[in-house]
Amino acid sequence: MDWRAEIEAAAGRIAGHVRRTPAMDITLGGHAVEIKLEQLQHTGSFKARGAFNSLIKGPVPEGGVVAASGGNHGAAVGHAAASLGIPAQIFVPEMAGPSKIALIERTGAGLTVVPGQYADALEAALAYEKKTGAMQVHAYDATGTLAGQGTLAREWDEQGLSADTVLIAVGGGGLIGGSLGWWQGARKVVAVEPETSCALHAALKAGEPVDVEVSGVAANALGARRVGALCYGLAAGQGIDTVLVSDAAITEAQRLLWREARLLVEPAGATALAALISGAYRPAEGERVAVLLCGANPAPEPV
Amino acid sequence: MDWRAEIEAAAGRIAGHVRRTPAMDITLGGHAVEIKLEQLQHTGSFKARGAFNSLIKGPVPEGGVVAASGGNHGAAVGHAAASLGIPAQIFVPEMAGPSKIALIERTGAGLTVVPGQYADALEAALAYEKKTGAMQVHAYDATGTLAGQGTLAREWDEQGLSADTVLIAVGGGGLIGGSLGWWQGARKVVAVEPETSCALHAALKAGEPVDVEVSGVAANALGARRVGALCYGLAAGQGIDTVLVSDAAITEAQRLLWREARLLVEPAGATALAALISGAYRPAEGERVAVLLCGANPAPEPV
Repeated sequence: MDWRAEIEAAAGRIAGHVRRTPAMDITLGGHAVEIKLEQLQHTGSFKARGAFNSLIKGPVPEGGVVAASGGNHGAAVGHAAASLGIPAQIFVPEMAGPSKIALIERTGAGLTVVPGQYADALEAALAYEKKTGAMQVHAYDATGTLAGQGTLAREWDEQGLSADTVLIAVGGGGLIGGSLGWWQGARKVVAVEPETSCALHAALKAGEPVDVEVSGVAANALGARRVGALCYGLAAGQGIDTVLVSDAAITEAQRLLWREARLLVEPAGATALAALISGAYRPAEGERVAVLLCGANPAPEPV
Repeated sequence: MDWRAEIEAAAGRIAGHVRRTPAMDITLGGHAVEIKLEQLQHTGSFKARGAFNSLIKGPVPEGGVVAASGGNHGAAVGHAAASLGIPAQIFVPEMAGPSKIALIERTGAGLTVVPGQYADALEAALAYEKKTGAMQVHAYDATGTLAGQGTLAREWDEQGLSADTVLIAVGGGGLIGGSLGWWQGARKVVAVEPETSCALHAALKAGEPVDVEVSGVAANALGARRVGALCYGLAAGQGIDTVLVSDAAITEAQRLLWREARLLVEPAGATALAALISGAYRPAEGERVAVLLCGANPAPEPV
């Protein structure tokens, strides 16, 4: 797969549909870092990139699109579908929580709440696809999704990113997969996962994607039971580092982003920073680090 | 007064002490606008610019500095003083509220809570200045403060601002005064004030600064009883437009910033946008509008 070409094509497709989110230099918790405020993206996460890319690329059948999601991907697909005039059906697990469920409802998409976790919602979405012929938009393990998320790395480069190393939170692996596809080793990418939802870490350890238990404060966004095969291939191929952080570190990073910079993110959106703040990732002397803020759909909503 | 030269000098002084806050293109409530995210500044508002400029310019006597503030200016002076190793004493009115009072306390500054409004806190700060010889850092009606705030307009120009018109919320007039000092008519500046705290509007109507009653959701940030003489001179001299917005419009704009862009600001920080969303300011066909987001110290804090 020529990921650079896929991502270039995706960037052309989604231009005008997604926001060019700001990048800035900042000191957080005493660490000078570059950050990208991707939580300001439409529907509050990077997921809008992959959703628009998949839906515009199509072809979308008459029955529209279907997606399973812990919340953010569903909102993104719902938003992209509404904006493009395509019918959408979203399956979310109960663990998505009322705020994310309301977010999807506001897009106007059809919505089914499924007992359990993301993997259970995915099963229901696959059954719906089979029954209706709707196009499945996978949250992370599809070329269109990965290439869309990869446009974020491309955009950050355009904005003058200078970091040696980029810390990225990982759930199923769409965002980091797209980033690895774009950078191809040009920057060091560090995968940051919650201790209690670490599908990529477990896969790299096992030598193949394996099932993990998922729980914790970021589980509705990062709680994939098994990392995507596309992400696994890229991560294993490039031999990237993974770092685990505790729920306490995630919550502390979330609070620090507000206290020091008035950036309100959800736990998953603070997970990459948690690696730096907690010392789980220690940069070498002179190593320039960037941290991606990827989502801001906290519960409850602040206003 | 050569405001352009004052602002250039201020920019040199405060470089490295304040953040270069991001600017971005965005559509909000159906309006394509440029925004600047100055609420991400140290202590959550533009006030850090004027505070650093005043304290670095000095000279600061041994007794340190004193300031009266509805909250944001006090936090900024406390932060700048702590960062420069200068003692600071801040007087705040009760109406500042617990969140802003806690914000000032966290800077380590000495703090006195005064019954009443900003004007009462200012009286107490003036008495303290007289007694101790501390340097008074006025929240809006001082050259150092105005020039510091003016660096924001200068920075926005550097970032490629293209707007014909910039909407700015007004309390005592430090931010808009600095902006008028920088732009000198090169862009149209529109003053946006709450209906219930409109010191500049009243002054321009009366032909001189006059006292007004202050209340409403943004009063702890915009509730100056009388607009500053420096701001009044610039605003009257340039014949700028003023627009009034209701508390309901401010609250709606605050909610819209969160819902559409995950930007959490305080009511004062949403006041400029409220003018556009509510229709209180209607741009002409083709007029390019920019909106300044100036503060994010809402109560209660979200995390």
